[in-house]
Amino acid sequence: MFLKNKIQITLMALFLVIASCKAQTKIASNAKKLKQHEHPSLILTKAGVEKIKSQLGTVPLFDETLAKVKAEVDAEISVGIDVPIPKDFSGGYTHERHKKNFLILQKAGVLYQILNDEKYAKYVKDMLMEYARIYPTLPLHPQKRSYARGKLFWQSLNDANWLVYVSQAYDCVYNYLTEKERKHLEKDLFRPFADFISIENPQFFNRVHNHSTWGTVAVGMMALVMDDDTLLDRALHGLKKDNIDPKAKDNDGGLIKKPGQKVGFFANLEEPFSPDGYYTEGPYYQRYAMYPFLVFSEALQNVKPELKIFEYKDGVLLKAITTLLNLTDADGNFFPLNDGQKGMSYYSRELVTSVDIGYYFGGNKTDLLSIAKDQGDVLLDDTGLSVAMGIRDGLETPFIKKSINLSDGKNGDEGGVAIIRANGSKDELTLVMKYSAQGLSHGHYDKLSFSYYEGGNEVIQDYGMARFVNIQQKGGGNYLKENTTWAKQTIAHNTIVQNESSDFNGDFETGSLNHSEKYVFDVSNPNVQIISAKETNAYPGTALHRTMVLIKTDNFENPFLLDIIKINSEKENQYDLPFYYLGQLMSTNFKYTVSDTLNPLGGKNGYQHLWTEGKGRSESGNAKISWFNHERFYTLTSVVSNEDDLIFTRIGAHDPDFNLRRDPGFVIRKKNTKDTYYVSLVESHGHYDPVSEIATNAFSSIKNLKIVYSDEFYIAIEIETLNDKKSVFLCSYKDNSNNSKHQINIDDKTYQWTGVYQIINNN
Amino acid sequence: MFLKNKIQITLMALFLVIASCKAQTKIASNAKKLKQHEHPSLILTKAGVEKIKSQLGTVPLFDETLAKVKAEVDAEISVGIDVPIPKDFSGGYTHERHKKNFLILQKAGVLYQILNDEKYAKYVKDMLMEYARIYPTLPLHPQKRSYARGKLFWQSLNDANWLVYVSQAYDCVYNYLTEKERKHLEKDLFRPFADFISIENPQFFNRVHNHSTWGTVAVGMMALVMDDDTLLDRALHGLKKDNIDPKAKDNDGGLIKKPGQKVGFFANLEEPFSPDGYYTEGPYYQRYAMYPFLVFSEALQNVKPELKIFEYKDGVLLKAITTLLNLTDADGNFFPLNDGQKGMSYYSRELVTSVDIGYYFGGNKTDLLSIAKDQGDVLLDDTGLSVAMGIRDGLETPFIKKSINLSDGKNGDEGGVAIIRANGSKDELTLVMKYSAQGLSHGHYDKLSFSYYEGGNEVIQDYGMARFVNIQQKGGGNYLKENTTWAKQTIAHNTIVQNESSDFNGDFETGSLNHSEKYVFDVSNPNVQIISAKETNAYPGTALHRTMVLIKTDNFENPFLLDIIKINSEKENQYDLPFYYLGQLMSTNFKYTVSDTLNPLGGKNGYQHLWTEGKGRSESGNAKISWFNHERFYTLTSVVSNEDDLIFTRIGAHDPDFNLRRDPGFVIRKKNTKDTYYVSLVESHGHYDPVSEIATNAFSSIKNLKIVYSDEFYIAIEIETLNDKKSVFLCSYKDNSNNSKHQINIDDKTYQWTGVYQIINNN
Repeated sequence: MFLKNKIQITLMALFLVIASCKAQTKIASNAKKLKQHEHPSLILTKAGVEKIKSQLGTVPLFDETLAKVKAEVDAEISVGIDVPIPKDFSGGYTHERHKKNFLILQKAGVLYQILNDEKYAKYVKDMLMEYARIYPTLPLHPQKRSYARGKLFWQSLNDANWLVYVSQAYDCVYNYLTEKERKHLEKDLFRPFADFISIENPQFFNRVHNHSTWGTVAVGMMALVMDDDTLLDRALHGLKKDNIDPKAKDNDGGLIKKPGQKVGFFANLEEPFSPDGYYTEGPYYQRYAMYPFLVFSEALQNVKPELKIFEYKDGVLLKAITTLLNLTDADGNFFPLNDGQKGMSYYSRELVTSVDIGYYFGGNKTDLLSIAKDQGDVLLDDTGLSVAMGIRDGLETPFIKKSINLSDGKNGDEGGVAIIRANGSKDELTLVMKYSAQGLSHGHYDKLSFSYYEGGNEVIQDYGMARFVNIQQKGGGNYLKENTTWAKQTIAHNTIVQNESSDFNGDFETGSLNHSEKYVFDVSNPNVQIISAKETNAYPGTALHRTMVLIKTDNFENPFLLDIIKINSEKENQYDLPFYYLGQLMSTNFKYTVSDTLNPLGGKNGYQHLWTEGKGRSESGNAKISWFNHERFYTLTSVVSNEDDLIFTRIGAHDPDFNLRRDPGFVIRKKNTKDTYYVSLVESHGHYDPVSEIATNAFSSIKNLKIVYSDEFYIAIEIETLNDKKSVFLCSYKDNSNNSKHQINIDDKTYQWTGVYQIINNN
Repeated sequence: MFLKNKIQITLMALFLVIASCKAQTKIASNAKKLKQHEHPSLILTKAGVEKIKSQLGTVPLFDETLAKVKAEVDAEISVGIDVPIPKDFSGGYTHERHKKNFLILQKAGVLYQILNDEKYAKYVKDMLMEYARIYPTLPLHPQKRSYARGKLFWQSLNDANWLVYVSQAYDCVYNYLTEKERKHLEKDLFRPFADFISIENPQFFNRVHNHSTWGTVAVGMMALVMDDDTLLDRALHGLKKDNIDPKAKDNDGGLIKKPGQKVGFFANLEEPFSPDGYYTEGPYYQRYAMYPFLVFSEALQNVKPELKIFEYKDGVLLKAITTLLNLTDADGNFFPLNDGQKGMSYYSRELVTSVDIGYYFGGNKTDLLSIAKDQGDVLLDDTGLSVAMGIRDGLETPFIKKSINLSDGKNGDEGGVAIIRANGSKDELTLVMKYSAQGLSHGHYDKLSFSYYEGGNEVIQDYGMARFVNIQQKGGGNYLKENTTWAKQTIAHNTIVQNESSDFNGDFETGSLNHSEKYVFDVSNPNVQIISAKETNAYPGTALHRTMVLIKTDNFENPFLLDIIKINSEKENQYDLPFYYLGQLMSTNFKYTVSDTLNPLGGKNGYQHLWTEGKGRSESGNAKISWFNHERFYTLTSVVSNEDDLIFTRIGAHDPDFNLRRDPGFVIRKKNTKDTYYVSLVESHGHYDPVSEIATNAFSSIKNLKIVYSDEFYIAIEIETLNDKKSVFLCSYKDNSNNSKHQINIDDKTYQWTGVYQIINNN
């Protein structure tokens, strides 16, 4: 036994000598190749690493991030490597483990480069070897829910995530590995992995969708590391052939591919972004897509600068960063338009990436530094270093979110989203009005809907998605069926529903062919900021035209929101307009009865999920409800007829798994009506502090809201306050040009104005 | 006309000379009197004012408070004086105006003393003159809801508030006023005011209740300023005669006065406070009462030090301050036991008063300074100065809230409230278990109920009161009828309800005669902290015994709560045990069905306010529900039989004014049962961050919860975790002495222990 051991040791020593010789040969041959394509080159560059090393200890935010990342990776290294056989949905152990693995691999790679400590490279190598060991024989993931199942994860999307991060890790340890090790990894892991998510899953790869953005970037990043132009071409331009069924849909009901559609990374950049940098799926998925878009662009800029990727489509990627930051409330949370989980914010790692890359490649805009400072985190690369140095040097300026209009559609001609902001006595009032295109498979049927914020609090909410991302108890963390039956439906939004059916009858293909049209967006006067848009396709034969104005006058404590919906139809319909106010109802100005038993408001299209808590009518010409939330009072005043049903609703009917929030709503229903107006006004007023128990300005200031004039071309709204001040808002539906001239007579008084609208205070 | 004016001027000059002479005489005569009783002497003293003046500019917190108060009073002075004819309920203009007036008067008086600026004295004088002008002819307040209507306010209580504050203002400007002015004010305003809230409202004044605390203090404070011993005697000892109907009740259904009950300030101090400083009405009203208790005690200490008021009843007032601070969650919010509005906290002005007076008169306990520092506010008097100086000098030490048991009842023998705290991995877990007396008219029928907190968040909530204090839209800011029909009822609490009726059948008199009994409270082992109490009167013929244990073991991420209820009855009953968990239901381990229409769970005693959202049964011996709130997961696991109904409820049925919150509940129902156990375990586990979208430890660690032994005298609970660790909790019902010895056999294994309970981990 002793003899045997001795022989083994001798043999091992011999192998080591040989290996060492081989390594020397390899370094020499690599040196030649590195001239063409050195490593690292994706998010780190050789020059960048040198600069980072020279600055270590002098750039606080970078140093802090580095220390944090080092602590995190060190903790993982001490736990040891675990590459389990895939089994679980998101939220489950194997899913979360593989997810953590790719995040840590990327970080360990970076640490190796910056700290020059081989333990990080070794950790990356050892784990990659584990993956290379299991990958060749891995079957499809056992969970069968996805239209494009992965191998490590239940969907190819997550496999693509893995490759995007791991390609960076590979780039960082490329030179640490022997050629043999690289060959092994490329042959048994990376190439089959890239082929699997592209060639073997064309329905995932060959699309225009955030899925294929991840897919193409994953393949492209690995192509850059491996210096494989064929693979890079596949990433940039897609598969030449895919045999995708033109009727095939994904799990969200979205069409896989329109006939003749361009594919590949460039197409994914070209089509979903409007010239204003708005991503048609909405901010939640824009955030999700920004990481692959930007990290690949950074890599392309480093390796293939001749592509000038950041100038593509008039610099749309850099614009998209500013746009995304504007799509947040006062707390930095994204407006949950379309499928969006509330609470996602610009503190996410994707936005750290966006801000850092945007700063570095976008001309060092100093207002981005104030966001980065809030984030308290930077990328450990050239871009993060430049941001941290900017902050160290005190260069940051405030990032000011202004009222903006964001066009939707590849060419910016498919409607859009308007965000109007006005300073209140305490916080900013923010209107988000959506008159966009469908938004691909994550779109909601919410034409002309809106949400309303005061500071970081929702006043009138957009429900967002019905999903608890990565919380396994809730349907494996995936989309819940209530996302389709409730969250996407029109009645789940603050907009008109005709005859209890959703826009386009909830038909995705029809919805995808249509979009609303801007009528006017004008925020030049800070006291009267307006968005007005039309929708004529959601309900064939019915024209909807919504005008929303954020108005500041001395007669109100805060800016208020005026909302005018003009409806013209070829036939009589039932119209519902819900307001999903958040908070506790305080009072109403009309009588209503509550139900002894609760019944759903309807049977389908989302109505089956609404309990009817109460019903009433108003004789006064106005329906007024006040509510209380986050120590503030709010009042909605609406012009109503005494035949309008005023319905109090509560979300949560037919919800067998308690997937929905029990939030209140208020629906104004007009029955058997062809043409009509909905005119409403939302006030934020007063304050209540449970510590001092003092309530101030707890009541609405509105005495009366009235349509004082309306015809085919004009409407005039009179707003009368309790202190007997009157304002009149005039609006023309005739002509939306700035210099059009208008005149109407109301009660023998002549009103003349230029442009679409006019407000006359203290009339 | 010129002539006439000239004469007037001459006459005026003459008057001024006379007045001036009179004033001089007055000053001389005052000087004599001041020896006996100088001004100010209530919350400010002559010596104190001198000290304050000498320290101005050197004590940051005092200077900041002074600047804040000065700015506030200056703003009010610039608005001008408004003393409207009373008209409104709380929340309404005249109510809020008069309330603001007395708060500002007190502050203006103090500013006059400290800043020596006559504008403040003049403001006080002018406003008092306005009150003296209207008071003599003021009828009863037009709002008729109160059992003791006021004149300035709808209830005498608020009138008493006014006098407590105004007496301080009067004290501060006493020497600024002429004798004639004082006589006028005392004759036309202060004496009739004091008589009105005492002699004319004996049902308000001659009680033991927070109302009469305010009443007696109001009269007493003014007696001290006016140096009127007769009036002071009335305040301290009550009216000799009152002719109160022994059956009379107040608006909350509370009995006005028990036959033979002692009254006056001393009785109000003697009776509601337990020797531990717990005020029987609960923390919300204790906070409310502390201001008059302490401010009058401060005044008594200054003017009548011979009474040694702070030593009264073994220093109960000073103890009460510490007790009140212990009755708060991690954010400083009071536990809403009995009638309590959520959000009231130790940041309230009453607690600023308490902490400052407690520090000054209670031996300068430095842990109070850390609370004062958090409050960021001090009293502008001798006590506030000493606190601010202590903070300036860095003397503060942390205020550590420990697990404590607070006895209830005058002699501390009427049950109590236990607060058990244990540090979790992120925040403190806090159990509040109530086994107290009725709590006077603000008491709830909640024998052996509990609430549970993690940090400042409610995990299992106590509903608190059904009232929006001072929010006029909601029933004038007063108690809502749902306070009686819902919030006070037993089913509104996390405790046993027998046969769908409340404790004592909801009868206040019966409830007031009874209290629960402590069995054991032991927190000597930080890993096993226990409270156990019995209730045998709430449901005659039924004995309830609840044992709650906060346990820390290595097998769980956080301490967990074990809850064992033993029920023994003479007959078969239906038992309900609700858990008002807060958050979104995540999952269950049993099947249930949700209702297509919602019906109330019952018809009365609070059941009419609960919708039945779903119903199920469990075959596994355990019912488990998990929920999610504030980024954390929670799981309740209960031992159930397959005949127990598992009911999901939602508050809000029969709520015509939307006065109730739509909060969820989970009820375990046992039917046709005599003797039984409810054994439950509450875990806090894991975390979910909507920005990283990573969920950790989202599932319960419990595999099985089981009663492995029970007989008349003993119970043993086995807790088995998913990683196959077992703990056994043993409890004796035989003997609650510390040194009692016990032995039982379970599955041929003998367990021996000393004292009431034992836990054996890793069994």
